[in-house]
Amino acid sequence: MNLPSKILEEAVEQLSSLPGVGKRSALRYALFLMNEEEAKVHDLSESLMRLKTHLHHCRHCHNVSDTEVCPICSSEKRQRGIVCVVENVQDVMAVENTQQYRGLYHVLGGVISPIDGIGVHDVEIDSLIRRVQTGDPYPVEEVILALPTTMEGDTTNYYINKQLQPLGVKVTTLARGVAVGDSLEYADEITLGRSIMHRIPFEG
Amino acid sequence: MNLPSKILEEAVEQLSSLPGVGKRSALRYALFLMNEEEAKVHDLSESLMRLKTHLHHCRHCHNVSDTEVCPICSSEKRQRGIVCVVENVQDVMAVENTQQYRGLYHVLGGVISPIDGIGVHDVEIDSLIRRVQTGDPYPVEEVILALPTTMEGDTTNYYINKQLQPLGVKVTTLARGVAVGDSLEYADEITLGRSIMHRIPFEG
Repeated sequence: MNLPSKILEEAVEQLSSLPGVGKRSALRYALFLMNEEEAKVHDLSESLMRLKTHLHHCRHCHNVSDTEVCPICSSEKRQRGIVCVVENVQDVMAVENTQQYRGLYHVLGGVISPIDGIGVHDVEIDSLIRRVQTGDPYPVEEVILALPTTMEGDTTNYYINKQLQPLGVKVTTLARGVAVGDSLEYADEITLGRSIMHRIPFEG
Repeated sequence: MNLPSKILEEAVEQLSSLPGVGKRSALRYALFLMNEEEAKVHDLSESLMRLKTHLHHCRHCHNVSDTEVCPICSSEKRQRGIVCVVENVQDVMAVENTQQYRGLYHVLGGVISPIDGIGVHDVEIDSLIRRVQTGDPYPVEEVILALPTTMEGDTTNYYINKQLQPLGVKVTTLARGVAVGDSLEYADEITLGRSIMHRIPFEG
């Protein structure tokens, strides 16, 4: 792309480093900002910096938080003996939105993926094991594995489960099956298979 | 969206003001930046501010430029008597990329659109007329109208042409027709119609 200005070029370069943003979108964003009021661009730019300077990972569950311990971990209304293990912050938000879960979380920040060079110590597995071992901040009775059903997710599940077995904690995983409202005809075989295998008593 | 942090929420709010960016993408960008190195986020944030503080519109053609007069307007190798009128900066880049045009530009920064509240004085039409009238910075022999073929573009073309007529300058517009490599079968009727109406001598 032949940009008419070095400053514009630099902004496009920087913006296109965002995930899923190409040069064309980056240029659109840059030209849009150029025509915005200075105060607005200043706010945006400050707000991005604050992501680095003021945003933390919760000391216990590693979810993002404005405070050292996140509101979920410090809430007295949650079932503190249950820990749901998820890959990332978005997954916490997805589970929270169901309003069906009252336990705590543990955000791994990724899953084991040797191809991408992500080993067991690059994600927050050690801290999860320690959390169960020491009962700090709260004793853990059940660990729910809610990782993606990919090879990497399965590998991570397997590794975590192996580490947790000796500790005598209950390990569960999410029920998988045909989505509510979906017709069987269009469900893939693996999903439908699981729905049948893990069938539950009918509540009439 | 129920975000776990005020700071994150603010960043998502700011980022989703970019054109075509929804809350979900904004969240992805914010979490990505949170995990980037501080220096990188600092560079991005600085670079966005510079768009407001250091980037100019060229005094003559209103293209974006690091200098008061852009490299195209100040180049001695361009045909200074020809001015191509375009809607925005991206259009300048598109024409430049063809490497077929050696004249100058005039960037309107939009087209007349009463519905969006954009009148003739909200875009750089007055400065174009003045440019032709005064011959400053260079005498203009031909104005090429290269605006979009929309109702707004047509209105703008019509208005500019009416203003330019008394000045005795040659006014031309882009040839429109079936794209090179496209089959006639799939061309829309208006485009194909124009291709036939404006047929040119065969160069064997």
